[in-house]
Amino acid sequence: MLSQITLEDIHPIGIGAGILGTGGGGNPYLGGLHLASIIREMGPQRIIDPFDLTDDALCCVVGSIGAPTVSIEKLPEGTEMSRALSLLEEHIGRRFDAVAIAEIGGANSMQPLIGGLQAGIPTVDSDSMGRAYPEIQMSSFLFDSSASAAPLAMVDAADNAAVVPGASSDKWAETIARNIAVSMGARAGLAGTIMSGAQVKAAGVHYTLSLAHHLGCQVLEAQRQKSDVPEVVASVLDGQVIFHGKISDVDRRVSKGFARGGVRIDSFSGADKLEIEFQNEFLIAFINGEVAVTTPDLICIVTEEEGEPVTTELLRYGTRVAVIAVPAPPQLKTGVALEVVGPAAFGYDVAFRPLPGGVIGLAPGR
Amino acid sequence: MLSQITLEDIHPIGIGAGILGTGGGGNPYLGGLHLASIIREMGPQRIIDPFDLTDDALCCVVGSIGAPTVSIEKLPEGTEMSRALSLLEEHIGRRFDAVAIAEIGGANSMQPLIGGLQAGIPTVDSDSMGRAYPEIQMSSFLFDSSASAAPLAMVDAADNAAVVPGASSDKWAETIARNIAVSMGARAGLAGTIMSGAQVKAAGVHYTLSLAHHLGCQVLEAQRQKSDVPEVVASVLDGQVIFHGKISDVDRRVSKGFARGGVRIDSFSGADKLEIEFQNEFLIAFINGEVAVTTPDLICIVTEEEGEPVTTELLRYGTRVAVIAVPAPPQLKTGVALEVVGPAAFGYDVAFRPLPGGVIGLAPGR
Repeated sequence: MLSQITLEDIHPIGIGAGILGTGGGGNPYLGGLHLASIIREMGPQRIIDPFDLTDDALCCVVGSIGAPTVSIEKLPEGTEMSRALSLLEEHIGRRFDAVAIAEIGGANSMQPLIGGLQAGIPTVDSDSMGRAYPEIQMSSFLFDSSASAAPLAMVDAADNAAVVPGASSDKWAETIARNIAVSMGARAGLAGTIMSGAQVKAAGVHYTLSLAHHLGCQVLEAQRQKSDVPEVVASVLDGQVIFHGKISDVDRRVSKGFARGGVRIDSFSGADKLEIEFQNEFLIAFINGEVAVTTPDLICIVTEEEGEPVTTELLRYGTRVAVIAVPAPPQLKTGVALEVVGPAAFGYDVAFRPLPGGVIGLAPGR
Repeated sequence: MLSQITLEDIHPIGIGAGILGTGGGGNPYLGGLHLASIIREMGPQRIIDPFDLTDDALCCVVGSIGAPTVSIEKLPEGTEMSRALSLLEEHIGRRFDAVAIAEIGGANSMQPLIGGLQAGIPTVDSDSMGRAYPEIQMSSFLFDSSASAAPLAMVDAADNAAVVPGASSDKWAETIARNIAVSMGARAGLAGTIMSGAQVKAAGVHYTLSLAHHLGCQVLEAQRQKSDVPEVVASVLDGQVIFHGKISDVDRRVSKGFARGGVRIDSFSGADKLEIEFQNEFLIAFINGEVAVTTPDLICIVTEEEGEPVTTELLRYGTRVAVIAVPAPPQLKTGVALEVVGPAAFGYDVAFRPLPGGVIGLAPGR
């Protein structure tokens, strides 16, 4: 288990979080550079085991909301995370004891480390997805309704700020926050989903920061040893390499704020094909026309040789890739959860077909 | 001067506010029905002379934000104004002594009466436009920068709420609030622009509620006496009837959230034409191709016989109308104000040509 994040941890976390991003979640690279500059100045960030939180500890999540494509061009001012946290603290009149991670997949793996370090509080080694998803309500912290997305606080790179003190539902909080993010140039810092330590312990997907770090370290080690990196990735995640091949077609469009489309991968022999449909994240995979993997199970594409994550914006004709299927954490597979993150929630007329076995997240002490 | 608003005052205020809406601002009719139902239950609403406010009285504006066309179909829950006021009070930790009027033109003439009555505080007989304009920053309360649009609070018909505690500028507050309003179904209650009594006295366009009432009464009286109603309107507003004719062409489109377009009116002889361009409100008028009236001066269209207001959505081929030009209140004609509400602010490459004379607003005691 990680107890702190130092400079050397940033690169492996970025690789691991990239793979867990299942094609979306944004690139952790720039956030990693930002985190490094702060660690150089302030020292390592403390990581707290979720089960070391007292039941009445006050926690929330903090992260970036907006379009990942924008975040590449529009750099942050730098203090968005801590300013969002402060604004939320001011609104509720209490101070947070720790920040949890909304999504470990992609760029939002780095933001809770940045925010926690700036605010002087530890980051909890738990997230609410074990992967990436595009919307606020798609969070295991919210499925049982004991916590809610609002109140939430948002700030931008200038002096603009907004608080959503309450919403009709978590989906409504998402709708309002999304439009505020659009006003703020499609990139804002957000703090919300206020929880007690007991709620984090009950609802979180635990040790996923450690998992991302461990995964990244194993990938780097396998690259050095020139071993079969995709197999190493599958093994660390208790998943399975389901396909090797070459990208033969990419259909990509931006619609309703999401990167939507599909990718076709032909096996090296040419005999088989795998097709994946995505909305920011890879959501459903078909092998030779048959459904093979469905959301919330993870569909990860990595490069065949290096095992590096391939996100939707990096899908290119001719790239040699491996596709890894990973069973989702159990928190995403309850009936309530599937209504929010199952195939139907994304408009697919397909039932969820759980992959056998597997529990994402490192067991304590592993 | 009005000291209270009773049931009988609602109809004339609606007519006067409709004319002062200069084609936009939304129809006061539904808001008037709503106000009537509350007055029946709670009694008349108290109106306070702005100069009776103590200098340290705490005031703000309250109104509806969104698309007037939506407000016809999507009725309010009914307590939006008082809930927005309460939310803003909660945010700043102080109670308001009175509510001022953001825009006297159109539907937002009624909302500060509804909100004040529900909240148990008087409505100030001052607005910030003397007419209607589409955006928050287009307010005389904001031109000298001693007050600011944020903090502001918004609520919808359900349980959704938002607070904008601060913004880089009033224009940014508008941008963020506008997107929040879109999330809320293009109709929300908004309280903001916090001011002291001294600020209201210094920056407001005074007695415009009384003016709208007086104007409506005079129109109704002229209708009964079958006198020349457009001439009566012009006389009450210290303006001038600049054209009589028949609508011969209407070009209307919804673009970037505004009703944009133009209308052409041919004189009854057919010898002359008047063309008006609008963005929610009538902004610039040309007679035979020559600029005749420019924003912020008021361009009001009324029906030829009844002198009833014609809003942009009611422009129809064949309607017989009179066009009245009214000098804007002096608060809208300073250099700073013209940067926000002059022709260039709406994209017209035309200098403001002030109409001679005139002061909108009833003099105290008139």
